[in-house]
Amino acid sequence: MTTTMKRWALSGAGREILKLVEAEVPTPGPGEILIKAAAASLNYRDKLLVDLGFGLPTPLTEPVTPLSDLSGTVVAVGPDVTRFSAGDRVISTFLPGWIDGDDLGTARNPNDRNLGAPMQGVLAEYVVLHEDWAVHAPSKLTGLQSSTLPCAALTAWTALVERGKLRAGQTVVVIGTGGVSIFGMQIALLHGAKVIVVSGDDEKLARAKELGAHHGINRQKEDWVEAVYRLTNDHGADHILETVGGTHLDKSLRAAAVGGRISLIGVIDGFEVSGGFVAFARKRVIVEGIQVGHRRALEDLVAAFDLYGVTPVVDAVYKMADFAEALDHLDRGPFGKVVVEIG
Amino acid sequence: MTTTMKRWALSGAGREILKLVEAEVPTPGPGEILIKAAAASLNYRDKLLVDLGFGLPTPLTEPVTPLSDLSGTVVAVGPDVTRFSAGDRVISTFLPGWIDGDDLGTARNPNDRNLGAPMQGVLAEYVVLHEDWAVHAPSKLTGLQSSTLPCAALTAWTALVERGKLRAGQTVVVIGTGGVSIFGMQIALLHGAKVIVVSGDDEKLARAKELGAHHGINRQKEDWVEAVYRLTNDHGADHILETVGGTHLDKSLRAAAVGGRISLIGVIDGFEVSGGFVAFARKRVIVEGIQVGHRRALEDLVAAFDLYGVTPVVDAVYKMADFAEALDHLDRGPFGKVVVEIG
Amino acid sequence: MTTTMKRWALSGAGREILKLVEAEVPTPGPGEILIKAAAASLNYRDKLLVDLGFGLPTPLTEPVTPLSDLSGTVVAVGPDVTRFSAGDRVISTFLPGWIDGDDLGTARNPNDRNLGAPMQGVLAEYVVLHEDWAVHAPSKLTGLQSSTLPCAALTAWTALVERGKLRAGQTVVVIGTGGVSIFGMQIALLHGAKVIVVSGDDEKLARAKELGAHHGINRQKEDWVEAVYRLTNDHGADHILETVGGTHLDKSLRAAAVGGRISLIGVIDGFEVSGGFVAFARKRVIVEGIQVGHRRALEDLVAAFDLYGVTPVVDAVYKMADFAEALDHLDRGPFGKVVVEIG
Amino acid sequence: MTTTMKRWALSGAGREILKLVEAEVPTPGPGEILIKAAAASLNYRDKLLVDLGFGLPTPLTEPVTPLSDLSGTVVAVGPDVTRFSAGDRVISTFLPGWIDGDDLGTARNPNDRNLGAPMQGVLAEYVVLHEDWAVHAPSKLTGLQSSTLPCAALTAWTALVERGKLRAGQTVVVIGTGGVSIFGMQIALLHGAKVIVVSGDDEKLARAKELGAHHGINRQKEDWVEAVYRLTNDHGADHILETVGGTHLDKSLRAAAVGGRISLIGVIDGFEVSGGFVAFARKRVIVEGIQVGHRRALEDLVAAFDLYGVTPVVDAVYKMADFAEALDHLDRGPFGKVVVEIG
Repeated sequence: MTTTMKRWALSGAGREILKLVEAEVPTPGPGEILIKAAAASLNYRDKLLVDLGFGLPTPLTEPVTPLSDLSGTVVAVGPDVTRFSAGDRVISTFLPGWIDGDDLGTARNPNDRNLGAPMQGVLAEYVVLHEDWAVHAPSKLTGLQSSTLPCAALTAWTALVERGKLRAGQTVVVIGTGGVSIFGMQIALLHGAKVIVVSGDDEKLARAKELGAHHGINRQKEDWVEAVYRLTNDHGADHILETVGGTHLDKSLRAAAVGGRISLIGVIDGFEVSGGFVAFARKRVIVEGIQVGHRRALEDLVAAFDLYGVTPVVDAVYKMADFAEALDHLDRGPFGKVVVEIG
Repeated sequence: MTTTMKRWALSGAGREILKLVEAEVPTPGPGEILIKAAAASLNYRDKLLVDLGFGLPTPLTEPVTPLSDLSGTVVAVGPDVTRFSAGDRVISTFLPGWIDGDDLGTARNPNDRNLGAPMQGVLAEYVVLHEDWAVHAPSKLTGLQSSTLPCAALTAWTALVERGKLRAGQTVVVIGTGGVSIFGMQIALLHGAKVIVVSGDDEKLARAKELGAHHGINRQKEDWVEAVYRLTNDHGADHILETVGGTHLDKSLRAAAVGGRISLIGVIDGFEVSGGFVAFARKRVIVEGIQVGHRRALEDLVAAFDLYGVTPVVDAVYKMADFAEALDHLDRGPFGKVVVEIG
Repeated sequence: MTTTMKRWALSGAGREILKLVEAEVPTPGPGEILIKAAAASLNYRDKLLVDLGFGLPTPLTEPVTPLSDLSGTVVAVGPDVTRFSAGDRVISTFLPGWIDGDDLGTARNPNDRNLGAPMQGVLAEYVVLHEDWAVHAPSKLTGLQSSTLPCAALTAWTALVERGKLRAGQTVVVIGTGGVSIFGMQIALLHGAKVIVVSGDDEKLARAKELGAHHGINRQKEDWVEAVYRLTNDHGADHILETVGGTHLDKSLRAAAVGGRISLIGVIDGFEVSGGFVAFARKRVIVEGIQVGHRRALEDLVAAFDLYGVTPVVDAVYKMADFAEALDHLDRGPFGKVVVEIG
Repeated sequence: MTTTMKRWALSGAGREILKLVEAEVPTPGPGEILIKAAAASLNYRDKLLVDLGFGLPTPLTEPVTPLSDLSGTVVAVGPDVTRFSAGDRVISTFLPGWIDGDDLGTARNPNDRNLGAPMQGVLAEYVVLHEDWAVHAPSKLTGLQSSTLPCAALTAWTALVERGKLRAGQTVVVIGTGGVSIFGMQIALLHGAKVIVVSGDDEKLARAKELGAHHGINRQKEDWVEAVYRLTNDHGADHILETVGGTHLDKSLRAAAVGGRISLIGVIDGFEVSGGFVAFARKRVIVEGIQVGHRRALEDLVAAFDLYGVTPVVDAVYKMADFAEALDHLDRGPFGKVVVEIG
């Protein structure tokens, strides 16, 4: 086996600082597995990391490999490994060590240890992970497709299923057409829900409808909250994936059904979220912060996707060397996921 | 029986418009009960109603009797009444007709029909209610005490018990010492929780401790969020009764434990609530709007209070004629509840 | 409008006692609606009623109209009706007055008031119901199809969705191919679950697979519990619709996954249910008695069926005069539902 | 430090086979802690183990140390230990490795790996445990008291709190006065519930009332189900700790409230449990198998007990050498817990 490999490394904020470097292939220690990478997918937070250094450890003692979402094949296992064998296809977990139930962390110091800063990430030809930090990849998906699940798909699943207890006949509104939103649409359809997609782009709305969305609302052309009222006979949205944040939360509060749930996921419009009290209280709305999810939920998701053949929507695939272009694609707003092919 | 009675009537915004008027004793129709009032209690929203006209029907076709929370004795029943007999001691429900489960209303038009505007309220010597809008009063409480339950106690109960599934050993933070907060404290103690009271007044903190609060934090003297960290060994608050609103929500988000719940109840600091996304997401905090509660939960509360002899904290009692003084007391910030004695 | 009509009447146990009689078309009183019946469907309990008098009021003061599940069209409304207008297509609710949340009744006297004994049933050309006892029929289903929902479909929905919080990727085992089982299969498929049908009849298993079941087990040919292990890689069943009862519960306990749910629905093998403690405790199995469900859940079900076009499986349709033959069909074990066409 | 110690060892079924043997003090490996035992408590299952060999591994390759519930002090830690330091007071967990959320195991092979057979138990002067298998002891309890928590207290907590979501005002019925029942009583009182104790012994009922039980029913003198109806105004029991099993489940089904929960815990009357379908279905009763509980729930329990000073009821304390007498005491039916003092 080769002893050197390529990996991307970030030693501060700014895309110009990103470097594709040569490194030694790591060796798995006790309880660890060595994964030959197939692909890694990008999330909005990776942009914040690369551009703003958001999440970088301080002080930064060594360059950080970016990205959290890996698919690949186990090629070697360290001592005491029981969950995997060489040859197993795996994907990474976003929050290493969160297996099930309540998470670690305190009010003062919540758990912020995820792959791809502050912990070492996965955009490398070989990656060592503790065996507890990986799950078996879906048997029916390619490596490229599987790499999209650890963060975006699990976030949508946690919001709608693990926490939201989504059921058939409910109305799900997804804001935008990025990774979490498109997975949210697919997961909602899988559970028999009605899906309304809100976007500013008619072409993307048309693609969403081809994938099964019941309705698309072009928020540039009409007040999307009013449109939700219209499309639900005033009932409103039972679940909203709030990927915009900032003052946009107020719109989601107005669109929410009585007893509706808003999953707080994104911060495109800012880290300070705000909204009106009256809608909150009179409709008894639940707004819940979603932190991706635990390993057991990821395993549930993999089983569900495998059973019904749910296929992640990959908008574009870039070569390892073209990571910068993948980031540019993210800037433009993808439909679904942007993936870097590694192996 | 007498045929005339006194009632307070509001025909617009402003305390000076309030009038104590003479009226006919109403007659119960089919399914209705006539209640001889014992007492009515005040809530913060009654202040908003009287001072700002908040909640008044538009257009206002007839003067509205203020207040929603009544205790009294059934003195006559209309045809087809099955739940009550003459002589029964009863209390009113805040949201008439919400019996159990999900509430009525839509995203566009949430249910805002409560007693004391837009519906006729209860500050009168005799009140007619549909039998579905009342529950049996606790057997161990006086009329004055019982009148405090329909809104403030039920709001705290819904937040902590019906929705919050509070359990022993959890930490509950109540903000302030008004009706909902003191009931929250009592309900939390009843369930074996740790109670931390946040107030700007040492004397009120001392009273809360006498009633069983484990800790008091004077927010004028220290950062209450830091104090919550200190008093919980950084764990944070599992439940927060957020009675302040506005930008104060951000403080509650920072004080919340991982997986903590913030019940959104009050708007002293404004109807636009806001807070930081990072605490929301990294701690997976749940913020839920609380709309008082349904009748079944009020019956649960009555049973629990009766079983353990929980006694509402009545800060002051005013005579029917002195309703304006009762409102003044509310302005000064009560410790617990302000009650008007009627019968 | 005609003033007389036909209805079936039962004045004691035994099919030979059933009579098709002439009666006056009833008049709706306050809050009531008059429904021109389209169809009524049969449930296993109707067999117990007709053959054994199970559920008949004692003493029997007047003949009882059998059957609980009605579809039809509102042709007149009494005073104060607000939920329906003439022309509305409706279906009945099985447990009149159970709207949402907790049910009425006590430990000593649980609620047993359902249509079709002890209350008057619906196998008549015209039926008067309180408006609270009906819901709007699905817009996409015929009267024949709609009549199958009030008991069998709602029972499966309550078990799997309202109580079971079914999610995609879980395994659902349905025992037999009667009404509840086939609805259970359809509801499970609608939520992205894996469905295993257990039956003693290969032909019925083949029909179930055509409708989407992932696996069929012929319990005459193999141990169905072992087959569930095999088909789930030893994981077991997350949800089981236990329609057999008696000692069969033990098999379901063995087939259940860790944390699995068994919904107790049927009593084909007897009213005394039993099973082994070890499976119960070591797998932390939940066995829950299902009593059809409340009106809000029926409305949820109607919305879900309408959204995805779920079509009830009607095994056979009999004319009003041929009710006895419909009962005979029930004896033979239907695949899905047996319906009596009325209007 | 001493290098030899005493431990009890069982090499087959039968009390006469039990031996107090000399052994080497074990050395903690990576991730392990060495505990100097303070006390170990007995559970009903230990009787089944010693007398019937229930739970013994087959084939038995080495003698098994009995008992699962240990308290003690960490005296040494192996490499990589992070949760504990020397000097920490700890208690064991019953199901090693079940941290939170769902448990391991499959439908075919549920997890049965607990301390004290099939795994090595704790009735020894020194015990090595993986650090993940222990939690900090309550700060306010003695070693004798703390030793009672891992199985009996956690079982009651899991049944009533973690799974049962007990709330104030509900009615809890505990059957008998053994360890789980008395803990159930204390936990129910801590949450503001009404407690009814069923026993055949007036003296034990009197002791339970001294500890706060609201009512005692002597099942020798009256039908306890009827008594529950009487004491709850026919409402019935919201929670029942079913420690008897066998056909006794039928009584619990009859005593249960509408929507009541029966936690299946004990098997005094046999491993085949049975009951009537009608009560099950008409009251929508939930019967749930309880398998002690996970580590996070044990930590919750410890925090709750510490906060309110809940003191376990220790019926009798025996010396290490007198383990056989402790078993005899268990035969006679203890009030609360029987403990062996070790260190």
